Amino acid sequence: MSQPSLESVVRSAGEWLRGVGPQHEIVISTRIRLARNITGFPFHSRASDEQRSEIAETLSTALGRCGLPGEWLHIDIEKLDDLDRLLLVERHLISKSLAEANGARRVVFERSEACSVMINEEDHLRLQVLRSGLQLDEAWEQINAMDDALDAQVEYAFHPQFGYLTACPTNVGTGIRVSVMLHLPALRLTGELEKVLQAARDMKLAVRGLFGEGTEALGDFFQVSNQVTLGRSETELLDSFRTDVLPRIVEFEQSARKALLRSRPQALDDKIWRAVGMLRNARMMSSNEALQCLSHVRMGLHIGRPLRIDLQTINELFLQTQPAHLQKLQGERLSGEQRSVARAALTRARLGSNQN
Amino acid sequence: MSQPSLESVVRSAGEWLRGVGPQHEIVISTRIRLARNITGFPFHSRASDEQRSEIAETLSTALGRCGLPGEWLHIDIEKLDDLDRLLLVERHLISKSLAEANGARRVVFERSEACSVMINEEDHLRLQVLRSGLQLDEAWEQINAMDDALDAQVEYAFHPQFGYLTACPTNVGTGIRVSVMLHLPALRLTGELEKVLQAARDMKLAVRGLFGEGTEALGDFFQVSNQVTLGRSETELLDSFRTDVLPRIVEFEQSARKALLRSRPQALDDKIWRAVGMLRNARMMSSNEALQCLSHVRMGLHIGRPLRIDLQTINELFLQTQPAHLQKLQGERLSGEQRSVARAALTRARLGSNQN
Repeated sequence: MSQPSLESVVRSAGEWLRGVGPQHEIVISTRIRLARNITGFPFHSRASDEQRSEIAETLSTALGRCGLPGEWLHIDIEKLDDLDRLLLVERHLISKSLAEANGARRVVFERSEACSVMINEEDHLRLQVLRSGLQLDEAWEQINAMDDALDAQVEYAFHPQFGYLTACPTNVGTGIRVSVMLHLPALRLTGELEKVLQAARDMKLAVRGLFGEGTEALGDFFQVSNQVTLGRSETELLDSFRTDVLPRIVEFEQSARKALLRSRPQALDDKIWRAVGMLRNARMMSSNEALQCLSHVRMGLHIGRPLRIDLQTINELFLQTQPAHLQKLQGERLSGEQRSVARAALTRARLGSNQN
Repeated sequence: MSQPSLESVVRSAGEWLRGVGPQHEIVISTRIRLARNITGFPFHSRASDEQRSEIAETLSTALGRCGLPGEWLHIDIEKLDDLDRLLLVERHLISKSLAEANGARRVVFERSEACSVMINEEDHLRLQVLRSGLQLDEAWEQINAMDDALDAQVEYAFHPQFGYLTACPTNVGTGIRVSVMLHLPALRLTGELEKVLQAARDMKLAVRGLFGEGTEALGDFFQVSNQVTLGRSETELLDSFRTDVLPRIVEFEQSARKALLRSRPQALDDKIWRAVGMLRNARMMSSNEALQCLSHVRMGLHIGRPLRIDLQTINELFLQTQPAHLQKLQGERLSGEQRSVARAALTRARLGSNQN
């Protein structure tokens, strides 16, 4: 398998941060993933090195054959250096655990980055569709088509009573996880965030940070996803997101933004303009601070503040200020302090520092 | 006594923050005060209301008669509202305790604010000369002349063995206090500040904050002054400041600035430019944050950073961002939150926010 170059992907914001799509002011992206395994092999954790290689080869070949539309890149994770692996994590194309694992493992993704497949993660297959904004139906339609196309090439491990068999029991059944990435800066500012997130948890939803499982909520981004996969059809799950979960959270955030604008416009503007000031003036900046500042600027743009900043630039910077993207852009490996300096230089350059 | 208006003083930086004079990059100002009492009256704390009024009248009249050069303003503190009193404290023309006391008390000062006399503070008289930069000899010459001129009009309480008698034993003898206001941002950044201040304390010097006794060290400003007044001539005291105390502290700060520029220029520039960014972008700002930001900008100007900001403006803002000055400039009383908004608007207006 010839390895395609990742250089070309670095400069774009990818799909999940394109900043378009319905309700994108609050719903950053919609993601659906399906966990699948194939018959004839043990689950990943119990497979031998040889079996893992065979699984990777089999599934990569099957994906190549199933005629999915678009240009698909097949990446052998084993052959990547740590920086390229981290790059794929930052773009939400692979999970941290796939990046950090050992042995034969791959990611196959369509160039737009809307569709991707992880091979030899926890399950043999993790199909993912990522759409900017709130696009539950479109994402479902797309992943369903991928699933069907692949099903024609391989034999899925399926049990008539339990449904799709998965390595972890929490995924058995439909193997589906629906996640929406939400941007909730106003709820953080009004102090109501924890209340809202707790309500989500009470609805049996998991709340995670920007980079998935085990990561902190950075820059006011929260990933909300289902935890139950058994005994509930995909349609029921999507319905609950569409009619219940999302309208409620989105409305909370909208109300918080309105309340801030009405009662404490100066406090809100202060956050926004300080973020602009930092991004345009700092000489050193951590990736967390960059995320937080970009988050406030993003909100400022969405409530119509005349920041003379382009939303597209902000969305790109969300990714480009991340460690791997930053180093790829600079074309060299950088220490933590060097990254901090390079990151501040990047935001100044992109956002038009007025004086150097 | 007709009360002159304080309106005209609000807009200037006064003497102590003029930002000129020898070594003004580090030595903000030199201050000498003399504590004096007059015979025929008990010390202030033991004087009756009538006696205090009589003292005030006597000394105000004596000051008017002694032919000191310049235009002198006689201010009856009792007749001022709390805002005007605070204004005088912020300008270092009176002490906090004089502002907050009760009964007959005055301040008489020359319009340039370099010379002032508090009447009925802890002592009947507190003569003060304040000079921008390091001007020990000039300040001493000037206060000595004031002292002589006043001595010709009134009879000082003086004991052949102990010297000038004062309300508090710590001032007995010469009644002199020499203070220098130092700006030590680099020592703070390198973490060496406490070591240097401890060395000053070991030399029997008192280290105080921006607004004297009992105030915090804000914006990296420190007031260093003698504590001993007995058994040491004024000349000896001035000599120790000139040859020992000041060269050492100034050199420490200079070395720290050089070390930062050499080894961590980005960290130094980061502080400076973030301060610029905050002053030009924030929509709400506390007076402490304003002081800290102005402090870093001041250092930036002194190490030659191209900030396109005028030092005079920074010096004026040190005062104008203080609560009383801010309210006088706005022409109305403001709540804490309103001051915070007005302060940020003022720094944006003065420092050229690029976008509104």
